[in-house]
Amino acid sequence: MNQFTCVFCDQKFPADPMSQFCPDCIEPLLVHLPAQPRHIHFEQSNPLEKYLDFLPITEVDTSIQLGEGNSPLLRLTRLEKSLKLPQTLAKNEIFNPTGSFKDRGTVLAIHIARSLDYNKIGTVSTGNMGSSTAAYGARAGIGTFVLVKEDTTTEKLLSAGIHNPTLIRVKGDYGDLLHTSFKIGKNQDIYFMNSTDPFRIEGYKITGFEIFDQMNQSCPTHIFVPVSSGGHLIGLMKAFFELKQQGLTKTLPKFIGVQAQGCSPIAKAFAAGKPKYERIHDPATIAQSITNPKPPGGNVALKMIRQFMGKIISVSDAEILNAQRLLAEYEGIFCLPASATTLAGFLKLDKQQKFQSQDRIVLVITGSGVKNTQILDHSPLSIHNSTLDDLEGTILSLK
Amino acid sequence: MNQFTCVFCDQKFPADPMSQFCPDCIEPLLVHLPAQPRHIHFEQSNPLEKYLDFLPITEVDTSIQLGEGNSPLLRLTRLEKSLKLPQTLAKNEIFNPTGSFKDRGTVLAIHIARSLDYNKIGTVSTGNMGSSTAAYGARAGIGTFVLVKEDTTTEKLLSAGIHNPTLIRVKGDYGDLLHTSFKIGKNQDIYFMNSTDPFRIEGYKITGFEIFDQMNQSCPTHIFVPVSSGGHLIGLMKAFFELKQQGLTKTLPKFIGVQAQGCSPIAKAFAAGKPKYERIHDPATIAQSITNPKPPGGNVALKMIRQFMGKIISVSDAEILNAQRLLAEYEGIFCLPASATTLAGFLKLDKQQKFQSQDRIVLVITGSGVKNTQILDHSPLSIHNSTLDDLEGTILSLK
Repeated sequence: MNQFTCVFCDQKFPADPMSQFCPDCIEPLLVHLPAQPRHIHFEQSNPLEKYLDFLPITEVDTSIQLGEGNSPLLRLTRLEKSLKLPQTLAKNEIFNPTGSFKDRGTVLAIHIARSLDYNKIGTVSTGNMGSSTAAYGARAGIGTFVLVKEDTTTEKLLSAGIHNPTLIRVKGDYGDLLHTSFKIGKNQDIYFMNSTDPFRIEGYKITGFEIFDQMNQSCPTHIFVPVSSGGHLIGLMKAFFELKQQGLTKTLPKFIGVQAQGCSPIAKAFAAGKPKYERIHDPATIAQSITNPKPPGGNVALKMIRQFMGKIISVSDAEILNAQRLLAEYEGIFCLPASATTLAGFLKLDKQQKFQSQDRIVLVITGSGVKNTQILDHSPLSIHNSTLDDLEGTILSLK
Repeated sequence: MNQFTCVFCDQKFPADPMSQFCPDCIEPLLVHLPAQPRHIHFEQSNPLEKYLDFLPITEVDTSIQLGEGNSPLLRLTRLEKSLKLPQTLAKNEIFNPTGSFKDRGTVLAIHIARSLDYNKIGTVSTGNMGSSTAAYGARAGIGTFVLVKEDTTTEKLLSAGIHNPTLIRVKGDYGDLLHTSFKIGKNQDIYFMNSTDPFRIEGYKITGFEIFDQMNQSCPTHIFVPVSSGGHLIGLMKAFFELKQQGLTKTLPKFIGVQAQGCSPIAKAFAAGKPKYERIHDPATIAQSITNPKPPGGNVALKMIRQFMGKIISVSDAEILNAQRLLAEYEGIFCLPASATTLAGFLKLDKQQKFQSQDRIVLVITGSGVKNTQILDHSPLSIHNSTLDDLEGTILSLK
C-alpha cells in the first residue's frame, strides 16, 4: 500500500490521487518510499522494469507504454572547447514519445489510473502536458479531459487534439483552473494528473536514475533543470536522495533550478531567503512552457533545494535565446526556450563563480523546439536567394 | 577500401561521394558489402558499434552522434483488437534526434565526410532532410548548405535554420536542383548527401537490423515503408538481404512500399510491370514529405522489391488521414501523413487479401506529425468551450 507524505509536517496519508495536498500545510504531497533494501535491475532495458524497486507500482504494463525513457546523455564537446567549460553533458528528454519529459511522469500516473480502475483521466495544460496525457490516454484507451486556457490557438492544440481527448477551452482565471480541476475530479471520479501529481513526480525520478547509470554509477557535480511548477525538479532531487538512502552513492549532485526572469517566483523567494514564494502578477517571458505565476510545487522545491545545498536562479530572455542558439549551432540540439534556461543558467553562474575543471555538469533538456515558431520574431533566420542558374556563384560567394 | 556497385549492371566503382551514379545506367550506386563473415556486437548499445561489421566505416566517433537509433518497436494491441488484425508493430523512428528516420542516414554520411576530410556538406530538402543534415553538420562543426524550393516558408525552415547552416532558397525547377547540387558539389568540393546517397542508405539498414533484433533474431512477415526517393526502402531491404547473406536468417520479410496516390510514380510502374517509372507532372497529396515526382532511387527500388517478392502500392489522401487518426486515437502515436501511409496500405491490402493470423506486420513510422499543422484543414479538432463556473456541468455533459 503506497503512502503520501508531506515534506513540511512529515505526516503520512494513504496514497490517493484524489487527495494530493496536505490538509494542514496545503502543499503537494509526495510518495513516501520506505527505507528498505531496493535493487536496480540492470538486466532490464525497459526503464520502468529496471527501476521498479524504486517506484510505487508492482508491475509494468508494456501495452500502455510508448517507449519513454532511455534518453541519451550527450557530451557537449564543441561547447566545452569554445566556451572553456568543464565536462558538460545534455540529458536529452526530447527523446520521448511526445517530445518532452512529461511522458516520464504520464506513464507512471497512467499505471496508477489503471490499477485503481479510473476510466477517466484529465490534465490542465496548454502545451506539452496536454500532448503527453492525451497520447497516453489514447494508448491506454482511457477517456481523457484536456483543459486549456481560453486564448489557446487551434494550432497549439493540435498535438493534444490529434489523440481525440475531450478538449475544453476554459474562460476564467487560469490559476484557479488547477484547483477547480481537482474539485471536479473528486466529484466526477476523474483522475486529474497535473504538474505536481505525486505519481507523475515518481516517473521523473527515472531521469535521475538514468543520469547516475549513464555516468557509471556516479553523480554529476551539478544538475541544471528548468523550473515551472517545481514537479520535475522535485522528482530529480528525490531520485538522488533515494540513491543515497540506498547507499548507492555517498555524494549528491548540486541542483540548480532555473526560471525565466519574467516569471521567477521561486528564484525570487530563494534569493530573499524566504520559505514561501509570492505569486507573480505580470508574467512576461519567451519561455512559455515554464511561465507559471503560481507554481503549485514551488514551496516544496524551495525546501528541498536548500536541503541539497542547491539554488534556484533566473535568466533573462536574451540569455535564453542566446543559449538556445548555442545548443543548436554548436551541438545540433534544437530545444525549447524553457530547456535552454539550463545552459543560460550554467553560463551565468560560470561567470560569477567559475566552475572547476573536474566538475561534471548535466543540463536537463526538457523538450523539443520544433513546435515553437514564435522565437523567429526574436531572432530571424538568415536566408539567401538564388536562381538555379546562379546557384554555383551564390554558393561560391557564401563559402 | 569501400566500393560502390550498380544493381543494374553489377559494375563496381571506388566508393566516392562525388560519383554516386553509374556512368552507364545513370542509376544511383549502392555500397558493396563483400561476402565475408560479419558479426553483430550484441554487447554494444550504440547502434553504430553494434552493427559496425555491416557498415562502411571502421570506427565510430561518438562526438558527432546525437543519440540516433534504438527506436522502440511497439505492439499496437488496441488497433489489432479493434480492426481484427494479426500482430502489428510500429517501428517508431520519431525517436531520433530531429524526429525522423533521416538521422540514421545522416550520421553515417557525416562519418564519411569526416574520414574523407570534407569541410563542407550540403543537402537538397524542404523538410526533415534539411533539419537532420543541419543538426549533424552543427554537431560536427562542418559548414552545411541547405538548398530549398523558392516557396518554402520561413516557419518551415526553422528546424533546419536554427542550426545556422547556409540556407539558400532556389528559384527554378526543383527536379533539376538535385542534379545541379551534385555538379556544384564536385566543382566546389562540397559533399551533397541527398536522399539516395549510398552512405545514407547504409545508415537506414540499421533500422532493419534493429527490427530483426527486437523480434528476437527473426523476421516479420511483412514490412510496410513509405516511399519517396526510394532510399529508405532500399536501405531496409539491403539490411535483410545482408542478414540472409550472413546466414542469420533463412526467410525474408515481404516488403510493401507505400506511396501517396497523388504522387505515385513507382507504384504505377510496379502495377504496370514496368522496369522504370515515369515522372509525375502534377503531384497533389497531403503527404508532402513523400511528394517526389522524379524519385532518384525509383528504378533501383523497383528492381529490388521484385527480388524480394514485395510490392509497391498507393493509398489516397482520405485513407492516409484516416490512418493518421487511427494511430493517434488508438495508440498515442502522432506521425506525419507520410508515415500513416504504412497503416493505410496495410488496411487496404488486408481488405484485398486478408492477412493470416500468424503474420507479424511491421509499420515503419518515419517522422513526427508535430511540425505539420496543415492536416487541420482536412480534419478539424473538436473543441468545447466553457467558463470556469460552468466547467463541472460542461464536463458532466461530455462524460
